[in-house]
Amino acid sequence: MRQQRITIIGLGLIGGSLGLALKAAFKDEILITGFDKEETSMRQAVACGAIDKFSLDLAQVVSTAEVVYLCTPVLQIEPMVKQILPFLKQGTIITDVGSTKRYIGEMLEKLLPEGITYIGGHPMTGREQSGILAADKALFRNKWYIVILNKKVSEQAIDEVCRLAKATGAMVTVMDAVIHDRCAAVISHVPHVTAAAMVNLLELYPEKEESLKLAAGGFRDTTRIASSNADMWADICMTNPEAIADSLRNLQGLLSEMIEAMEHGDRQFIHDFFAAAKNKRDRLLPAVTN
Amino acid sequence: MRQQRITIIGLGLIGGSLGLALKAAFKDEILITGFDKEETSMRQAVACGAIDKFSLDLAQVVSTAEVVYLCTPVLQIEPMVKQILPFLKQGTIITDVGSTKRYIGEMLEKLLPEGITYIGGHPMTGREQSGILAADKALFRNKWYIVILNKKVSEQAIDEVCRLAKATGAMVTVMDAVIHDRCAAVISHVPHVTAAAMVNLLELYPEKEESLKLAAGGFRDTTRIASSNADMWADICMTNPEAIADSLRNLQGLLSEMIEAMEHGDRQFIHDFFAAAKNKRDRLLPAVTN
Repeated sequence: MRQQRITIIGLGLIGGSLGLALKAAFKDEILITGFDKEETSMRQAVACGAIDKFSLDLAQVVSTAEVVYLCTPVLQIEPMVKQILPFLKQGTIITDVGSTKRYIGEMLEKLLPEGITYIGGHPMTGREQSGILAADKALFRNKWYIVILNKKVSEQAIDEVCRLAKATGAMVTVMDAVIHDRCAAVISHVPHVTAAAMVNLLELYPEKEESLKLAAGGFRDTTRIASSNADMWADICMTNPEAIADSLRNLQGLLSEMIEAMEHGDRQFIHDFFAAAKNKRDRLLPAVTN
Repeated sequence: MRQQRITIIGLGLIGGSLGLALKAAFKDEILITGFDKEETSMRQAVACGAIDKFSLDLAQVVSTAEVVYLCTPVLQIEPMVKQILPFLKQGTIITDVGSTKRYIGEMLEKLLPEGITYIGGHPMTGREQSGILAADKALFRNKWYIVILNKKVSEQAIDEVCRLAKATGAMVTVMDAVIHDRCAAVISHVPHVTAAAMVNLLELYPEKEESLKLAAGGFRDTTRIASSNADMWADICMTNPEAIADSLRNLQGLLSEMIEAMEHGDRQFIHDFFAAAKNKRDRLLPAVTN
């Protein structure tokens, strides 16, 4: 039996879960080779069955790969691709799981020679814990897995990335990179920046103890994502700055409308602002699967 | 046995829970008379034991009261006080459970004659459901109950409001009205306005379906309070406009710093902004009891 050769670089929560999900779906039909900068993570990945084998030698890891998954932080993708490029065979598909897509796509387009294809991916999943020990073969199940459209690559290559994504149990959809990044800015990146800003806002006021007495479930929930990993979110902002800045400016504009309404005592406007948000959220929320 | 006479006006979640908690603490030592604009709510309040009796006649309801709790929406407090004022006896203490304190205090100070005392209160509790049927005698237990300092009233009156608040199982603290409103703006009102703004932001972009595919737990949690009651929040904004507008401007300022950092590619600033928020939130959160 010919085994399909898959490589996963970066064996954290996502890389590890991807390995577990693909092995669960394809068993011995695929051979997964793994790499991580931490040797312990590679040993743990073999032990839990997320990968079949690993090597400290990147040439060994990627030279026979048909599909390479890059599951490192976004800003480590470019240096990693430069390292593995000399060892890739013709026809290899590179894909990734990063949270921003246009930046990575433009960057890799410049790097990759004819015959090596990049197709972006973004599985909409995660959990509080990170690392290989938190990996779970069900992490992708019934979550959206976005595959980025690229008119310069073959339909077969896109189909192949979609086929593997479906095998993890995810719902697969294709999307343009610019639209992906704009939507992600509005619905994910702006809430993260704003949650952090609402926590930092407390620093501007002297009454710490009193504020905490007035803090309730609303503060806890609204700022939950302010406890996310600072490095990951700095990378996201660095690789989607235009869309995030644009959405933040629009958010500032909406806040200005509310400031003005409060200063003019315009109860109708304020009421309608809250009512519109409530109606929209109550209508949308059943569709939020993650 | 002489029974203490308590009146609760507004028999929703908070008014009803207050009645249940006080009756559980004092049993037949207190007699609670209730009033609500809905007769059904009054009947349900008697049936569940939140009040001992009710009347459709406000004179009957308040004329023997030693303490009157106003548990109506904030903007209904002033008209209600005007209605009951002619029937109150000398020495009556009026208190309330509204979310903003300076506006109510200033308004009632103008209305109340010598011998009738107002002392603001703000129990930091609540739940998703509203109405008398959601009332729970444990609603206040281990939550902060803020009693507003007022140098113009006797210490005994403040002590009395604090004693009753403690009897509900709450942790009682006294606070100046201006500080209360400023802290509430920063930690509660601004997150509410901002959560609503983040939902309304989606309206400015055409890709509804794609955005929803990218929505995850972060969006759900960050905007949870955008599903709150629009009337209640319009009243809060109308009665604490200066503090909320001031805090919203400061929030806009923090967002501007992040916009600028993204446009200049200043990863260090962005990282430090997220890291500061994470550190502060992780440190503060154990103290958030609600």
